[in-house]
Amino acid sequence: MTANRVVRLARRPVGTIKPEDFEIGDEPVPEPGPGEFRVRLEYLSLDPAMRGWINAGRSYIRPVEIGEVMRGYAAGHVEVSDHPDYKVGDAVAGLFGAQTHAVSDGRGEIMKVDTALAPLPRWIGGLGMPGRTAYFGLLEVGQVKAGETVVVSAASGAVGAIVGQLALIHGARAVGIAGGPDKCTYLVDELGFDAAVDYKAGDLAAQLDAACPDGIDVYYENVGGEILDAVLPRMNRFGRIPVCGLISSYNATEPPPGPRNFRSVLVNRLKIQGLIVFDFAERYAEATSRLAEWHAAGKLKIREDVRDGGLDAFVDTLNLLFTGGNFGKLVLRL
Amino acid sequence: MTANRVVRLARRPVGTIKPEDFEIGDEPVPEPGPGEFRVRLEYLSLDPAMRGWINAGRSYIRPVEIGEVMRGYAAGHVEVSDHPDYKVGDAVAGLFGAQTHAVSDGRGEIMKVDTALAPLPRWIGGLGMPGRTAYFGLLEVGQVKAGETVVVSAASGAVGAIVGQLALIHGARAVGIAGGPDKCTYLVDELGFDAAVDYKAGDLAAQLDAACPDGIDVYYENVGGEILDAVLPRMNRFGRIPVCGLISSYNATEPPPGPRNFRSVLVNRLKIQGLIVFDFAERYAEATSRLAEWHAAGKLKIREDVRDGGLDAFVDTLNLLFTGGNFGKLVLRL
Repeated sequence: MTANRVVRLARRPVGTIKPEDFEIGDEPVPEPGPGEFRVRLEYLSLDPAMRGWINAGRSYIRPVEIGEVMRGYAAGHVEVSDHPDYKVGDAVAGLFGAQTHAVSDGRGEIMKVDTALAPLPRWIGGLGMPGRTAYFGLLEVGQVKAGETVVVSAASGAVGAIVGQLALIHGARAVGIAGGPDKCTYLVDELGFDAAVDYKAGDLAAQLDAACPDGIDVYYENVGGEILDAVLPRMNRFGRIPVCGLISSYNATEPPPGPRNFRSVLVNRLKIQGLIVFDFAERYAEATSRLAEWHAAGKLKIREDVRDGGLDAFVDTLNLLFTGGNFGKLVLRL
Repeated sequence: MTANRVVRLARRPVGTIKPEDFEIGDEPVPEPGPGEFRVRLEYLSLDPAMRGWINAGRSYIRPVEIGEVMRGYAAGHVEVSDHPDYKVGDAVAGLFGAQTHAVSDGRGEIMKVDTALAPLPRWIGGLGMPGRTAYFGLLEVGQVKAGETVVVSAASGAVGAIVGQLALIHGARAVGIAGGPDKCTYLVDELGFDAAVDYKAGDLAAQLDAACPDGIDVYYENVGGEILDAVLPRMNRFGRIPVCGLISSYNATEPPPGPRNFRSVLVNRLKIQGLIVFDFAERYAEATSRLAEWHAAGKLKIREDVRDGGLDAFVDTLNLLFTGGNFGKLVLRL
């Protein structure tokens, strides 16, 4: 008899997530009620945002409660359905949670996807939430224009790789910050970035100066900390900084130091603006269809880093995000 | 024979400005050429921005050079004129520099003012550059809406006092941060602020909580440092932070620490935006006329702190701004 393997939050983590922070076990496979369907999930998306979702306290979304199924984007196929729009065999992606089987009424962050256009895990990656985050962050918050210089941190990651390519598509110069020569080579040689900066190679300031001879117009922030410190004095007048993530501090147990060189905000009239993709929910379809078009046209290359081990590897795999251990969109095969 | 008393920059200050950083002396009174006029200046505006203008390096405006007349807003009356629009006896205000006599062709930041509407020093204060800075910062950058809570630092100062009253005029709740009970009482009893927070009285966090039971929607930043640290976690979703000044760090010789609690930018989707009033030059007339209307209607009370001593007191008087020693718009009588 098949069971539903489920990851539930056991306690609130302090600092880096530990295996004991979650309880992973077998539960009865849920039965869909009237108007519902059940999905057999095959891939779980591992995202930096997950670290924030399990903290207590006010945030942009209610925290996952102790005992609750861990929130997460996942993709799979419908295996039972009483829902008129979802047929058995349909490929679906959405906020199904960290489990192998989920029941849904189709409402919320759930959509049917076309695996002829792109393989299943890509719909929770570059064509899913991370892709939409890049899209709205660069185009709406960042207001990128042709001829400008765009710098993005965590540039080989799920969001960053899309940001840089969207910059190129819109006629801007794309500079990626990533860790290590392999990722930097990938950005330039595979994705077509104009330059890459290796934050592990030291002298970030000189590397940025070399990569951005005309300064920086848009800095798409995924990381925070020292990278932001180095970018701020290099911003051009009226530059924009969409703040999509601050992963360097997600495991901090004390509030981290703030961005140095903050005076650049005043002198250069910068706009720093926080970005949560949920605020753009009404325009998800637009973003997904445009991303899929560029992807089909070969202008948007997407790389997944699919890990095995199933949900039992949830914690160890998730923690790769915080050490830069992944290369491409991190996905767990269930 | 009358002389032109002139303040010239003698060297680049390090940290707090010292008397030796300027050379103050008598020079021949300049003669206006064809199409020019000469003003006998009576009041010099002392503004925090002056500290930035004498630093070397790229900023929003070219630095005052060594040997150059110190940049500054001043007001006086035309005493000689070959300019068709400026008659002898006209009251004028603008960027005439730190001197007693100035020649102008009427171009640049110079305007005729009406001393029947407001006394001369007010046209370099609440109805001048500081007033316009408050106007564009709160209304354009801050996008204040009725029912919101506006917090402003340096609230009894030239810009802050206008910001709070503009908030009230637009139906918002106004909370001012100032130093000491006299200034705080003035904000509430004289200007009608809803609450005041005394940053010298300690426990800024608890004071802010008490003054802002519904959180903060707009924080108009004049100060930076610990005040910004305390405000950030209290910002409401989609809050705006116009950054008009960061006076707490203007005399710093090392880059100051950045704003702590920066994560609030992401979680609450804040917009932090630098503001230099020069960017709104095309709309100065609009701002001045609306400010003058509200002033005439009694909705905008303006307090000057006019100091004697003439230009020889320039450095000591200017430094009052950095210790909170002034109470109201600081002006030097020439």
